[in-house]
Amino acid sequence: MLPVALDAMGGDKAPDDIVAGAHRAVAELGVGVLLVGQPEVLEPLAGDLEVLPASEVIPMSADPGSSVRRMKDSSLVRAAEAVRDGKASAMISAGNTGATMASALLRMGRIKGVARPAIATPIPVPGSTPTVLLDAGANAECQPEWLVQFAQMGATYARARFGVAEPRVGLLSIGEEDTKGNTLVKETNRLLRGRSDVRFVGNVEGRDLMTDAVDVVVTDGFTGNVALKTLEGGMRFVQRAILERLTATPQLQAAFDVVWPALLPLATDLDPDTYGGAMLLGVDGVCIISHGSASAAAVVNAIAVAQEMVAADLVGALREAVTA
Amino acid sequence: MLPVALDAMGGDKAPDDIVAGAHRAVAELGVGVLLVGQPEVLEPLAGDLEVLPASEVIPMSADPGSSVRRMKDSSLVRAAEAVRDGKASAMISAGNTGATMASALLRMGRIKGVARPAIATPIPVPGSTPTVLLDAGANAECQPEWLVQFAQMGATYARARFGVAEPRVGLLSIGEEDTKGNTLVKETNRLLRGRSDVRFVGNVEGRDLMTDAVDVVVTDGFTGNVALKTLEGGMRFVQRAILERLTATPQLQAAFDVVWPALLPLATDLDPDTYGGAMLLGVDGVCIISHGSASAAAVVNAIAVAQEMVAADLVGALREAVTA
Repeated sequence: MLPVALDAMGGDKAPDDIVAGAHRAVAELGVGVLLVGQPEVLEPLAGDLEVLPASEVIPMSADPGSSVRRMKDSSLVRAAEAVRDGKASAMISAGNTGATMASALLRMGRIKGVARPAIATPIPVPGSTPTVLLDAGANAECQPEWLVQFAQMGATYARARFGVAEPRVGLLSIGEEDTKGNTLVKETNRLLRGRSDVRFVGNVEGRDLMTDAVDVVVTDGFTGNVALKTLEGGMRFVQRAILERLTATPQLQAAFDVVWPALLPLATDLDPDTYGGAMLLGVDGVCIISHGSASAAAVVNAIAVAQEMVAADLVGALREAVTA
Repeated sequence: MLPVALDAMGGDKAPDDIVAGAHRAVAELGVGVLLVGQPEVLEPLAGDLEVLPASEVIPMSADPGSSVRRMKDSSLVRAAEAVRDGKASAMISAGNTGATMASALLRMGRIKGVARPAIATPIPVPGSTPTVLLDAGANAECQPEWLVQFAQMGATYARARFGVAEPRVGLLSIGEEDTKGNTLVKETNRLLRGRSDVRFVGNVEGRDLMTDAVDVVVTDGFTGNVALKTLEGGMRFVQRAILERLTATPQLQAAFDVVWPALLPLATDLDPDTYGGAMLLGVDGVCIISHGSASAAAVVNAIAVAQEMVAADLVGALREAVTA
């Protein structure tokens, strides 16, 4: 397998933790990693790893479209080109999400027939496979036909990644009835009801995301991003509140030391790092968007997912699944 | 003060828990409660409380508009009429949310100048006042001008209910930059930036809902409802997961018995019952929409909030705040 192109300059903890993750992935997974970025920064950290030179770095807050067009020698653009040119099997970045999407879209191009790529994010469902939420933020405004393609792509991804044989697809709404929701939801519901290639189980609500009621949840990128960040914020809040309360007295601290090992797997399940990041579905190559706060462990997970999705020929399966 | 009209037939636990809540509220708060519903059901439970007869009950799942138009002698319609006719100071229901809105809207009418009433829901922020989220579900599709009114009404509510002197208002989006979001958000941002009567702090994200970064979060009713239910689902999931894990062995159970009293206030803070329910802002009267699962304790809280908002002349303050 070709190496994975890793944007070594992107993310809050770049380059140190990103490169550390690459070294661990090479050792643990036996996969090749191509570090993309400024040679003067990366050479001292790279060891045996190959560096693909890119002189520019797109800042986390830069405007995606214009920066990708202007900064042709940026690590993000070079990583996407490495996939396009057959030098890498997949790209990964924890940098500017919009610029990662734009680089992938402009350099790799779309899978034929795909109207809009979408970001697919696994939502943890302990005791079951994660729920795939898409679009988690690529398209703030959507057409019903795009959501039908998101359903096709999300189901393909749930199958390839989590081994769900016949993924149940739900449409995010504000009530289970077909007649509830906004115009986009009502029209998408009608289209999905008419399809035989998607196992559509109807409208679902925000409270279903963390349950095993459904395997794939389809929505527009605005709603999906709000739901995802609301959930992340809520989880972070509860974890912090529990830690604070259970370390307030020595007696609580002692009890905390007993219960913490039992709670730790839950914290891991809920940690976005566990799943390595989101996947940009619909571009002509494997593209993983990691959390901006991605740690070395998150990078290892992301590289593992990339390797797995390349081996499973996710892109080929998406090409089969999507109808124009 | 006039009594509060309580739809004694609405909610999963009606009529027993609803009426029990009414009795407790009368004893604890010294407020009058008018039980609205079927006399043959309510008389045996009512004791000293007055019953306002209504022969029909709108089912939880009925279509709101048509059922309110058809069932003129329903408990919901009669409760709204009691407020309109000066027989009650406020109405409360844990029944069909859409039908509660429709009853209030059709019988009480709107405050002059209000384009659309909105549901305002307090989101718990332990250690601080709650964040008021609106619209939490009344209007699946919104115009920018309505969201400006939601900002005015939400700030008025945060002031009257939680004593926030100058409420900071945020607009729910998918990034803090003014240029991010969908068309509705971009246009609303522009309108709010131009107003001096709203303390607009800019766009906020889902993760800010449970923090003290902002006092009021404005959004359309589709996004608001999805965010609220996502958060509720996430909180419920974590509570269940913690309970399961910490009662798995006798040793964990013993530690759990120590930590649980420290965690209980957190669980209470996160319980939707604590705030008594959501408020329908913009109708010409106080209208509280309780959770369908409302317990007797939730009913007591809802009656307390109704009493407080009548005493504070919330409706008068809203009339002053909203510009057409």
